[in-house]
Amino acid sequence: MANSESGDSLISRVVRILETFDTDRTSRSVSDIARRTGLPSSTTHRIVSELSEYGLLERDDRGNVHVGMRLWELAMRGSQALRLRQVAIPFMEDVQAKLRQHTQLAVLEDDEALFIERLSARDSGANITRIAGRLPLHASSSGLVLLAHADDDLQHRILSSSLTGTSPETITDPDALRAKIAEIRRVGHAVAPGYIAPESLGIAVPVRGPGGGIIAALSVVLPRDSRDADAATVYLKSAAQGITRAMRASQNAQ
Amino acid sequence: MANSESGDSLISRVVRILETFDTDRTSRSVSDIARRTGLPSSTTHRIVSELSEYGLLERDDRGNVHVGMRLWELAMRGSQALRLRQVAIPFMEDVQAKLRQHTQLAVLEDDEALFIERLSARDSGANITRIAGRLPLHASSSGLVLLAHADDDLQHRILSSSLTGTSPETITDPDALRAKIAEIRRVGHAVAPGYIAPESLGIAVPVRGPGGGIIAALSVVLPRDSRDADAATVYLKSAAQGITRAMRASQNAQ
Repeated sequence: MANSESGDSLISRVVRILETFDTDRTSRSVSDIARRTGLPSSTTHRIVSELSEYGLLERDDRGNVHVGMRLWELAMRGSQALRLRQVAIPFMEDVQAKLRQHTQLAVLEDDEALFIERLSARDSGANITRIAGRLPLHASSSGLVLLAHADDDLQHRILSSSLTGTSPETITDPDALRAKIAEIRRVGHAVAPGYIAPESLGIAVPVRGPGGGIIAALSVVLPRDSRDADAATVYLKSAAQGITRAMRASQNAQ
Repeated sequence: MANSESGDSLISRVVRILETFDTDRTSRSVSDIARRTGLPSSTTHRIVSELSEYGLLERDDRGNVHVGMRLWELAMRGSQALRLRQVAIPFMEDVQAKLRQHTQLAVLEDDEALFIERLSARDSGANITRIAGRLPLHASSSGLVLLAHADDDLQHRILSSSLTGTSPETITDPDALRAKIAEIRRVGHAVAPGYIAPESLGIAVPVRGPGGGIIAALSVVLPRDSRDADAATVYLKSAAQGITRAMRASQNAQ
């Protein structure tokens, strides 16, 4: 539908244009977008104009383009992630208030951990994860929890792929990763010391949906030398149970 | 571009499809989408399929369609609202921890207040606002703050429109609204007792961006009989100043 001579569709071009924006670069010139997408300049102008007409993109005073609030509104308003996030946030606040460290919620998306929420105190330590940011499944405590509860196909795909570490301590050996997954399933949580950054320790637990399946991972990032790891695990498990109960209650209320 | 025989573009049809979803209804059948958009069934099927191919929509086990996590990711990742929200959330948490009531952040969008964040304790009172939800500018404390600091054109547009109240106490008389706007600018905050719901009291303050212009409204919703209104105003003004300072620091750090 609406395919160009080169065979790619308008929707695929829109996606390529949207992919040029991220938290580090929330605005770009049209020529910059054309260069990064590889689309002809006139095509880029035309698509940007039409997207802007509907508020999906916006232009600032200097003519630079950014993602429109209307796109965010449409994506957010109907998002199932929003409901999970809305239910989860009071429980995440409890964890965050007790530990004063980054508290995060991630879901499985395209074989990666997609972070849909992060609460951070102003004095929390270093953390590379971002809302709407992703991490490989084997390289973070949240990803490991999602991997440990994923179906066999996905586990096989990850275990047979070429695994690279984000730090020297990330597990990249398939046998070691298989053992880690078994341990996570046995103890009910994942501990990832120094996997992302040498000075940090990630702890994550699975969050079950109303139907009993794992729908997300809830995690905290502590300083590596923190003495709160055991307490954090208890808080996280309690919060995860609370989220499941609240989701079940909100579903039954409908 | 890619116009149909009826002259509407593919992008406009995509927007119409996305508009059929909201927090009350996060999934729909394709025939339901066709009925609500007024698009032919075959067209709806085709567009839904293509959007699904790129993860912008997703289908569940029963074939029902919902907004895809990929769309949320693309919209969120490049969103300027995300940066404001990320900077604001620790300050919002401070306000929320002190008052234990709904704490909200809204921006001006299409002559309405669009709520981009809400923190709620589990024991907070009633509140109709939702993230990615909107309220008319004259009918909420956040909207009134945004209206009071909007340009003359927008103020004129609102004051000369037919104003309806969401409760008997909402100001709908243009002269009374003009006086309210002047008061908000003089005292630096808006108080909206019973405007949305008889039992609630909204209080909002303006948030300035690094450049000095008003970029958002920060608000709390208290029970109508709360004695915390004065304290809430002080907390909100302090948080708003903190957000401005933090945005300036984060801009200078780039």
